[in-house]
Amino acid sequence: MISVGVVGGTGYTGAELLRLLVSHPQVKLQKITSRASAGKQVADEYPHLRQLIDMTFCEPDSTELGQCDVVFFATPNCTAMQMAPQLLNAGARVIDLAADFRLQNIEQWQQFYDCEHTCPEFLPEAVYGLPEINREKIRDARLIANPGCYPTAVSLGFLPLLKAGIVVPGSLIADAKSGISGAGRQTKPANLFSEVAENFRAYAVGTHRHRPEIEQTLRYISGVVEKLVFVPHVVPMVRGIHATLYAQLTDTEVDLQRLYVDTFADELFVDVLPPGSHPETASVRGSNTCRIAVHKSDDGSTAIILVVEDNLVKGAAGQAIQNMNIMFGLDETLGLMQAALWP
Amino acid sequence: MISVGVVGGTGYTGAELLRLLVSHPQVKLQKITSRASAGKQVADEYPHLRQLIDMTFCEPDSTELGQCDVVFFATPNCTAMQMAPQLLNAGARVIDLAADFRLQNIEQWQQFYDCEHTCPEFLPEAVYGLPEINREKIRDARLIANPGCYPTAVSLGFLPLLKAGIVVPGSLIADAKSGISGAGRQTKPANLFSEVAENFRAYAVGTHRHRPEIEQTLRYISGVVEKLVFVPHVVPMVRGIHATLYAQLTDTEVDLQRLYVDTFADELFVDVLPPGSHPETASVRGSNTCRIAVHKSDDGSTAIILVVEDNLVKGAAGQAIQNMNIMFGLDETLGLMQAALWP
Amino acid sequence: MISVGVVGGTGYTGAELLRLLVSHPQVKLQKITSRASAGKQVADEYPHLRQLIDMTFCEPDSTELGQCDVVFFATPNCTAMQMAPQLLNAGARVIDLAADFRLQNIEQWQQFYDCEHTCPEFLPEAVYGLPEINREKIRDARLIANPGCYPTAVSLGFLPLLKAGIVVPGSLIADAKSGISGAGRQTKPANLFSEVAENFRAYAVGTHRHRPEIEQTLRYISGVVEKLVFVPHVVPMVRGIHATLYAQLTDTEVDLQRLYVDTFADELFVDVLPPGSHPETASVRGSNTCRIAVHKSDDGSTAIILVVEDNLVKGAAGQAIQNMNIMFGLDETLGLMQAALWP
Amino acid sequence: MISVGVVGGTGYTGAELLRLLVSHPQVKLQKITSRASAGKQVADEYPHLRQLIDMTFCEPDSTELGQCDVVFFATPNCTAMQMAPQLLNAGARVIDLAADFRLQNIEQWQQFYDCEHTCPEFLPEAVYGLPEINREKIRDARLIANPGCYPTAVSLGFLPLLKAGIVVPGSLIADAKSGISGAGRQTKPANLFSEVAENFRAYAVGTHRHRPEIEQTLRYISGVVEKLVFVPHVVPMVRGIHATLYAQLTDTEVDLQRLYVDTFADELFVDVLPPGSHPETASVRGSNTCRIAVHKSDDGSTAIILVVEDNLVKGAAGQAIQNMNIMFGLDETLGLMQAALWP
Repeated sequence: MISVGVVGGTGYTGAELLRLLVSHPQVKLQKITSRASAGKQVADEYPHLRQLIDMTFCEPDSTELGQCDVVFFATPNCTAMQMAPQLLNAGARVIDLAADFRLQNIEQWQQFYDCEHTCPEFLPEAVYGLPEINREKIRDARLIANPGCYPTAVSLGFLPLLKAGIVVPGSLIADAKSGISGAGRQTKPANLFSEVAENFRAYAVGTHRHRPEIEQTLRYISGVVEKLVFVPHVVPMVRGIHATLYAQLTDTEVDLQRLYVDTFADELFVDVLPPGSHPETASVRGSNTCRIAVHKSDDGSTAIILVVEDNLVKGAAGQAIQNMNIMFGLDETLGLMQAALWP
Repeated sequence: MISVGVVGGTGYTGAELLRLLVSHPQVKLQKITSRASAGKQVADEYPHLRQLIDMTFCEPDSTELGQCDVVFFATPNCTAMQMAPQLLNAGARVIDLAADFRLQNIEQWQQFYDCEHTCPEFLPEAVYGLPEINREKIRDARLIANPGCYPTAVSLGFLPLLKAGIVVPGSLIADAKSGISGAGRQTKPANLFSEVAENFRAYAVGTHRHRPEIEQTLRYISGVVEKLVFVPHVVPMVRGIHATLYAQLTDTEVDLQRLYVDTFADELFVDVLPPGSHPETASVRGSNTCRIAVHKSDDGSTAIILVVEDNLVKGAAGQAIQNMNIMFGLDETLGLMQAALWP
Repeated sequence: MISVGVVGGTGYTGAELLRLLVSHPQVKLQKITSRASAGKQVADEYPHLRQLIDMTFCEPDSTELGQCDVVFFATPNCTAMQMAPQLLNAGARVIDLAADFRLQNIEQWQQFYDCEHTCPEFLPEAVYGLPEINREKIRDARLIANPGCYPTAVSLGFLPLLKAGIVVPGSLIADAKSGISGAGRQTKPANLFSEVAENFRAYAVGTHRHRPEIEQTLRYISGVVEKLVFVPHVVPMVRGIHATLYAQLTDTEVDLQRLYVDTFADELFVDVLPPGSHPETASVRGSNTCRIAVHKSDDGSTAIILVVEDNLVKGAAGQAIQNMNIMFGLDETLGLMQAALWP
Repeated sequence: MISVGVVGGTGYTGAELLRLLVSHPQVKLQKITSRASAGKQVADEYPHLRQLIDMTFCEPDSTELGQCDVVFFATPNCTAMQMAPQLLNAGARVIDLAADFRLQNIEQWQQFYDCEHTCPEFLPEAVYGLPEINREKIRDARLIANPGCYPTAVSLGFLPLLKAGIVVPGSLIADAKSGISGAGRQTKPANLFSEVAENFRAYAVGTHRHRPEIEQTLRYISGVVEKLVFVPHVVPMVRGIHATLYAQLTDTEVDLQRLYVDTFADELFVDVLPPGSHPETASVRGSNTCRIAVHKSDDGSTAIILVVEDNLVKGAAGQAIQNMNIMFGLDETLGLMQAALWP
């Protein structure tokens, strides 16, 4: 059994981690911390976990957490970096679901996150936890930067095109749509039911923090400088990301369907749909699967890739557990094969 | 392993059965039938089951189905009764998720369901599959009438009051609210997104088919003739039932909280919340748990009981599997302990 | 033209007032105040009012507001009472959409609103602004206590029964359901989209502030002490209240349909539906109409009354304008005859 | 007063026409037809129109309709073309909200709509009713092809770029998102609440009928052959379209904000937001306004245009009335200046 600590268990990502961890056959939940709710029963904060978790939230104590085999940080940005060094030094592994170790360029990180990094010396060993591109490195990692929700969907969607080297430089566009749970439990008017329901809007055009993260991954895959036009939108739903990706192709004759099927043939959490399909976010609600459909414009010049995932699962907590499974030599799918909740 | 047949696998209840059965460790799915989709891959109809079920829908054939250990009917009313006799005679057990075997009074059944019953001779052995009142009978049953969604919530909510005999006769009111999945996959304007979203309405006041079913159960529990005022409503959500129950008490001093906690002390799928609570349907979304909170009016004269369940799980497919577990001597909770999906 | 001031224009009720006032043919908007947004263009806060209102929010200044013909308070509780005396003394009329002048019993008010009343001497002249029971008093009033959203629906629904004197004492139950806009623009987790969507719950059972207000009105109508069992619920929608009302009848033979039709024959904003109807909240979305349907239990002993209104219109801003129309001798329906937005 | 006939009054577009027409000060509703509901009170089908419309649906009779000044067709495709010739010959004007007269290329029309056109001889005089590009022609038209919902948003969004001639040929992408009311009142599973709520998907990639319509308009504006990559999506909401438009610019220095503000300076129903804005569909719910925000990618090479409209108003019924106003020499905004319903 792997002894697990969860830091910051009161947000949506933390709740989702707990939902998945309680049914993971190789996990023993050791510590669930929350400064705000310390001393409170987990089930009092989260009634859906009654009868499943009989623990209280505790203060985050690095000595105690350091004794866990692995500690997940489901905290706001700029939090994990403050404890990670001690935990790593104590022998625990760390999986950060926030952004502290995602960008290797420290200046860019500080600019986008508006925060001084407190342990940049750990960045070189941080592994970007997208198994489909980094599985071997994850196996040996002590410190995982779990990808953002948009970056997971967008990077997986562009991956085959970039590996095949058939994209016109500078032509990548990601028009992404997310359920509001991606904004977390922040209590601002824009996140209220009355202002999200029956409403659709873009936001942060040109300024979203996930753009440099995606561009770093695209570069990592393709080996060349990739820039991205990235437009995120809020959908009046709780869970789910749909990325609609556009790329000009250098080769209009390429069989994209075959390319995608082949690229992901061994990936258990990437499901390429039959030609002509339109994946639905509801088909992955609560599941760790990413579904992809491949289209082309009439003249063959533009690839149109449709990608769906559950932002809280493959886009956060599920992928974190997938990383844990790899790090500890377990079956990568352990605890992650629940069917999506439909309807 | 129990070999299982599912008849009518294309509705919401059928889909939910499949979702739960694929992760049940003692179940082997043998047949999934659908007249309309025969020959089609299950995963083509239900993309959320891709990678989990590799079977095609087949025609319902009573000979083949009769070789299963148990056959679930997730069909419209007046369907199971046409095949059940053959299956039972062939040695299979039958769990009907529709209403064909729910009402013992055949005239009442024919009146409310507007249909001639084709095998009334099987009614005497049909067991009403509400484990909290019928566990022993279910154990030995061949034929289970799985309760309706409203009846499950309302009956469980009134159960302690009726067993304690502290209700003023004729004072029971059930004001019930359901997500629209309770209406099934019927394609009529009233079920369209555009007419359900941002809308709330009562329906079928005085005429809903679940009223006689609930009254039968209340009578079964209390031993006296119970009439019920029952008003169902449609909530603009997919899953979930919230029943708000009112009863005049003969004893205003009774400790209702203790009564409910004691009554359900051994029930793993009934969770009585602490005093002052208000259960949320989201806390049981996708789970087989029924949560109950107990209140009284200021003067103590009226019990106000709040009950939530997922209409597709404890109100349908989950309870059907709970019944199967009991019938086959398995742990009653097997395959049913997934946490609710929140948020 | 009536010169109008709106105090507290940044909440949902304030926004709704502005939406209705801009198209009122006899209104000139003079001042829109907001401490938090003073100096900001109204249309920057509310893009839906661009091109319709070209004004900036100003600080609430009682001298300036006192020069208006009428001032609406769309403020939190315990705010209007601090400025109302000065405005009234300056000759303005005041319509408070909050609760400061709703309860005549000052002790009860202080207990439920947890606040010292600063001008109880104005309570005797405050008129409860429910035109259907107080039209004549409203005509001559300087100070209107605009009813709460639940109290409007519940009081109108019980009105004919109480006037007819056919209710068994102590038998009134109001099971009420509201869209979340009723909670205002409060930024707490319980109001976030992620926690309201696909969720249904009761709240404040036994403790809701609208109960004493409703009881006061029921008493006012019937002349006897009326107690009420009141259970409010949150519906995952923005606008709309549905009250399901139950009352034991002393006379089981009474023709309720006729009673309701006759009682409201001259009321332009109360629409009694044909027998057997189920009103939908969507049918009054954005409109000032309250629709009612009348049912009885099978044995005739229980009246079941279904009432819908838009909580922000007939339950708040629309009714406030209806009161203004009456106070200024205008056609009561002026500016209020827009059709509901459906679907 | 203009005497108006509405053919096909039972769909969502028909209902929206009625909502707007009842409050239009220069309109007299003469006939509302519906084969399916002939003889039924309009208010029985649409309770939100009770007290506002006291008419019954009648059979569509071309003699009677021909006596109207103008007849709106809110019918399925391939319907208006069967009556339009008679009505025009009788002297009525015709505004078709469906697609019968939208495409000038008859072969293309027959291919996309899979239907033989019965009066192609009327196509030459049919005016495409987008006032922002065709106001003068609309003034004198007898027959208006009212634009589709997507084409209105997409065409208005690209208009300034195309008129300025600053777009790289072949680079136009429209990633469009629509509320489900755009699918009309069709009763198929994909439109049910249970399958739309908490779900997001693209559909009809490469095959949507609105693409040739948009391309025709882009060509009309720019004078050159324009092809478009068009990807529509379904948003879990009732009303609203958000089009996110991408175009490569030939001139990266152009001041797009100024270009858009200048282009639409005299348009009362096109509102260009300040720089950096993100328009919300909720800000136009129920209103005839189209709001646009203008962005560029970091390197200035890609224009990113965000457009919102209410698909049932500016995208259908509102624009039809705007066209009527122009045809009859009325103020173009008459009956169309209601504020959006927010929240």
